Amino acid sequence: MRMYADGMPRAKGDHGARRREVSEAVWRVLATRGFGGLTLRAVATELGATTGLLTHYFPTKNDLVTYALDLLDQRSAARPRRTAGQGTDAVRAALLDILPLSAEATDSNRIWVSSWDTALADPALREEYAGKYARGRDKLHQLVAAAQRLGELAPGDPARIAACAQAFVLGLVVQALLDPAAFPPQRQIDLLEDYLAALAR
Amino acid sequence: MRMYADGMPRAKGDHGARRREVSEAVWRVLATRGFGGLTLRAVATELGATTGLLTHYFPTKNDLVTYALDLLDQRSAARPRRTAGQGTDAVRAALLDILPLSAEATDSNRIWVSSWDTALADPALREEYAGKYARGRDKLHQLVAAAQRLGELAPGDPARIAACAQAFVLGLVVQALLDPAAFPPQRQIDLLEDYLAALAR
Repeated sequence: MRMYADGMPRAKGDHGARRREVSEAVWRVLATRGFGGLTLRAVATELGATTGLLTHYFPTKNDLVTYALDLLDQRSAARPRRTAGQGTDAVRAALLDILPLSAEATDSNRIWVSSWDTALADPALREEYAGKYARGRDKLHQLVAAAQRLGELAPGDPARIAACAQAFVLGLVVQALLDPAAFPPQRQIDLLEDYLAALAR
Repeated sequence: MRMYADGMPRAKGDHGARRREVSEAVWRVLATRGFGGLTLRAVATELGATTGLLTHYFPTKNDLVTYALDLLDQRSAARPRRTAGQGTDAVRAALLDILPLSAEATDSNRIWVSSWDTALADPALREEYAGKYARGRDKLHQLVAAAQRLGELAPGDPARIAACAQAFVLGLVVQALLDPAAFPPQRQIDLLEDYLAALAR
């Protein structure tokens, strides 16, 4: 895939297409090499462009990392979600949405897991991540409390149940990424069902 | 902390001490910056040595990463474990051993989480990690089965229960590292107790 490495002038309308090409290339590099492998050279190779050309987009490595983190955020926000239902069904849907059950969800989870290293090395970014996961827990907390009101989940502090459930799916994501043969989609779903069954008892 | 940056000849007995200094410096860099921040320059600064000098130990970046992964393995294997007891106590001890409940366990967990990016980018290393976590699950499987035989844990496929429990603690590690304020040691322990209580029902 060639970007304007030929140096030809382009019409203004190309700008959006170019940005999309750059985004796709950054995403593919992240999905295969992670943040540890995210370099101008790797993105340039993916694009069939020169490294020098890429520096127009990303003057420094840090600009490239910032762009990649924004891209991860945007794609995560824009990804399609299961329709929720109510009670335990809504809890199940929210947890299934996190798991790497498709190629696309596997790529973005792989990039999320990879980004933890970056987040842990930067106090401001770690704070941002902590907020992101706290909002995820709050959402789960509401869904768990609603399922308890319907009598579908056993009583217990819904905040603690939400924190446990979030931990469970995050860890399952890690296991599935590191050992996809042992954790194909159906096994992830079965383990999640075990988990939900234990919460119902 | 100065390493032999002065270029003075040293007695042979210094060799072990130097290796320990290098190991400590690599470990501290990993604990604060992760694999993403592991560079010869960062290790040299930590040691008060020159980058050029470090290249005697690590001719390439890859040598440094390989050394760091070995160090993580060795330190993990050598870390003190809780005495196990039997039944649920043994399951509890094995899971507590994984959590970042001390400064030392926090450092090594932070380095583990950071290393996932490296592991996911390298098929052979990912295979190795998959084996490591599979052995962890096998050990948990045995402990869960023993606790079931004692009637302390509810019936159910011990392999599935072990996989769920491992997912739960891995995810709790991630939450605690990203948001230590929300997951201080006592909260991690409380959540683990909730989890064990659910397995007993």
